[in-house]
Amino acid sequence: MAIVTLLTDSGESDHYVAAIKARIISINPGIRIEDISHKIKPNDIGHAAFVLRAVFRDFPKGTVHVVGVDSAGGRGDVPIALQLEDHFFVGNDNGLLGLISEKPHQNLIALNSINIINTTFPERDIFAVAAVKIASGVSLSDLGKPLPAFKKMIDRQVKATKKQITGTIVRVDSFGNLITNIPKEAFDILSKGKTFTVQFGGEKFRRIHTQYNQADEGECFIVFNSLGLLEVGIYKGNASELLGLDYDNVVNIIFEE
Amino acid sequence: MAIVTLLTDSGESDHYVAAIKARIISINPGIRIEDISHKIKPNDIGHAAFVLRAVFRDFPKGTVHVVGVDSAGGRGDVPIALQLEDHFFVGNDNGLLGLISEKPHQNLIALNSINIINTTFPERDIFAVAAVKIASGVSLSDLGKPLPAFKKMIDRQVKATKKQITGTIVRVDSFGNLITNIPKEAFDILSKGKTFTVQFGGEKFRRIHTQYNQADEGECFIVFNSLGLLEVGIYKGNASELLGLDYDNVVNIIFEE
Amino acid sequence: MAIVTLLTDSGESDHYVAAIKARIISINPGIRIEDISHKIKPNDIGHAAFVLRAVFRDFPKGTVHVVGVDSAGGRGDVPIALQLEDHFFVGNDNGLLGLISEKPHQNLIALNSINIINTTFPERDIFAVAAVKIASGVSLSDLGKPLPAFKKMIDRQVKATKKQITGTIVRVDSFGNLITNIPKEAFDILSKGKTFTVQFGGEKFRRIHTQYNQADEGECFIVFNSLGLLEVGIYKGNASELLGLDYDNVVNIIFEE
Repeated sequence: MAIVTLLTDSGESDHYVAAIKARIISINPGIRIEDISHKIKPNDIGHAAFVLRAVFRDFPKGTVHVVGVDSAGGRGDVPIALQLEDHFFVGNDNGLLGLISEKPHQNLIALNSINIINTTFPERDIFAVAAVKIASGVSLSDLGKPLPAFKKMIDRQVKATKKQITGTIVRVDSFGNLITNIPKEAFDILSKGKTFTVQFGGEKFRRIHTQYNQADEGECFIVFNSLGLLEVGIYKGNASELLGLDYDNVVNIIFEE
Repeated sequence: MAIVTLLTDSGESDHYVAAIKARIISINPGIRIEDISHKIKPNDIGHAAFVLRAVFRDFPKGTVHVVGVDSAGGRGDVPIALQLEDHFFVGNDNGLLGLISEKPHQNLIALNSINIINTTFPERDIFAVAAVKIASGVSLSDLGKPLPAFKKMIDRQVKATKKQITGTIVRVDSFGNLITNIPKEAFDILSKGKTFTVQFGGEKFRRIHTQYNQADEGECFIVFNSLGLLEVGIYKGNASELLGLDYDNVVNIIFEE
Repeated sequence: MAIVTLLTDSGESDHYVAAIKARIISINPGIRIEDISHKIKPNDIGHAAFVLRAVFRDFPKGTVHVVGVDSAGGRGDVPIALQLEDHFFVGNDNGLLGLISEKPHQNLIALNSINIINTTFPERDIFAVAAVKIASGVSLSDLGKPLPAFKKMIDRQVKATKKQITGTIVRVDSFGNLITNIPKEAFDILSKGKTFTVQFGGEKFRRIHTQYNQADEGECFIVFNSLGLLEVGIYKGNASELLGLDYDNVVNIIFEE
């Protein structure tokens, strides 16, 4: 069965999300629609890219992901569709889709090139319509002209040396947990045979847990989470509030021989 | 496939919405249920009517829309079902359904007339049960006695003369955009060969955009939106907060020869 | 059709809920997934148990309910699956599932006993996987070792005598209505031939309504709600805010001969 997912910043108190779904159903009632989130902060490309990157591979290959965040984009940004890691993505070329994978794209088209569509609601009138067609088996090359490239912004990078890994908090989740961009792979290689200290705010810790509940209630846990990223939290508490840390703050791991 | 949509003010932190869905599935598991919104402000008929009016026609004809907002209604208000513009609606006759279309209804019944049902949860025990039956092909006349009319309240009207259109903000959406009741049709007729000024708060503008991103970040845009209604916003900003404008405030378009 | 419901405290602005659904769909795309709520307060077992208890029986028998609230649990708590009142439940043995029914369970297993799974995301990696198998017809005994018992905490009890029923507010819903644990059955037996006074905060009332709209706007209503529980509200108002009453406050019914 064809699956179309929706990721928007439209909230849930307006008609926007239902209008997108209604359009999809009206064209092809056999499609399964799954919400990823409609609670992305308005126009927050970073928030949306984090969520999409974290989950798209969990869906079956061939799933079509409609991305309606900052859908108007900047002046000159165009609606695009692309194939990437055997998934399909439809949205505005505002930079968001350039942040979800390091892999090269398999196919890329400008969506508005065959028929120019003038609309203030591209999620419904352009993205949803294209998504249904893709999910129904239409090939990208029938929906628009090939593009050589789409917008790739440089994401926050981890700095890793033999002495130190420096990362940043890339997402504060709804529990207040602080998800960093420090990958387990880098830590595993650099930490071999060394003791280490994890530092954030004024805090220092010498242990990384494997489970949240290895910390006591109200105490810090540090884990490599299900995304393979270093995550700091307070067990049954809100770490962001209690530690005063937020998006973009720095987390360091210091190695000693 | 039969589709039932849900629009309620029940929020998402209680059992209410799931109970309505469970009832529908238990009677007919083949029905596709689509949420319109459960974030309508409690008992806010105007909010609900705006959202329903904006989206119901996007669903396929024959869709059954369950409206669970102010479901108890005032004393004497009864549960009704009606057919309107080839869609079906089930809810309380509290005035909400009278605000969604100017077209005459095709069929109208009192839902509780065949079997009086005493319940504090009419969305589940009356509306959902009726909706499943309608979606499964039962005709309205088998579900209740015909009614001659349902409640029609007078909605905010636009005043249009050769010199001026005066409308009001009928919805502040989740982006903070200000949606008015000024229709593009009226503007197109009255603006022919004239210059114009759009006025709201202390602001005056002489241009209407066709796309949100024709404004720069932080600047006002004015468009006729996908509903054909004049909408004022601030590109990548919250116009309601930044302009200090809210539901029911006035927007004028002044014409000069 | 097999149905799996989801009840979590994960919120809707992260990838967690979509990741659970994607896992289910990837294993068995024929399963119907229904959200109960993802707006449970973080780790609030009482909130989650109230909602689940209120709605699970509305779903068809055989439905599998995935409960992802306080999913890590306390140290030593294990993932379990059980059959209860002909429904299936999968979650952590943190006490939540012990609060949803007084009936004895029909089957009970430790989920992690056949294959130990190390994960910080048990909702996706353990609960969802088990739920799909159960919904697809796999018997509990093939998924883990039988357990003799699961955690049963003692819930707030109603005290009932011939002179008085004393209950507490067990849920403030999104309308601000105050739902107590006082059951209609107890009231019906004890109130026979007696006058009574319902007392909460500084208020006293001598009438119980059968419908919300028997109160005027802004006035208190007292009903036995669709769960058969005494509920206090203010018609078209927020009773919790206006009366200053909240979770765990006391409500009394005093009988006079």
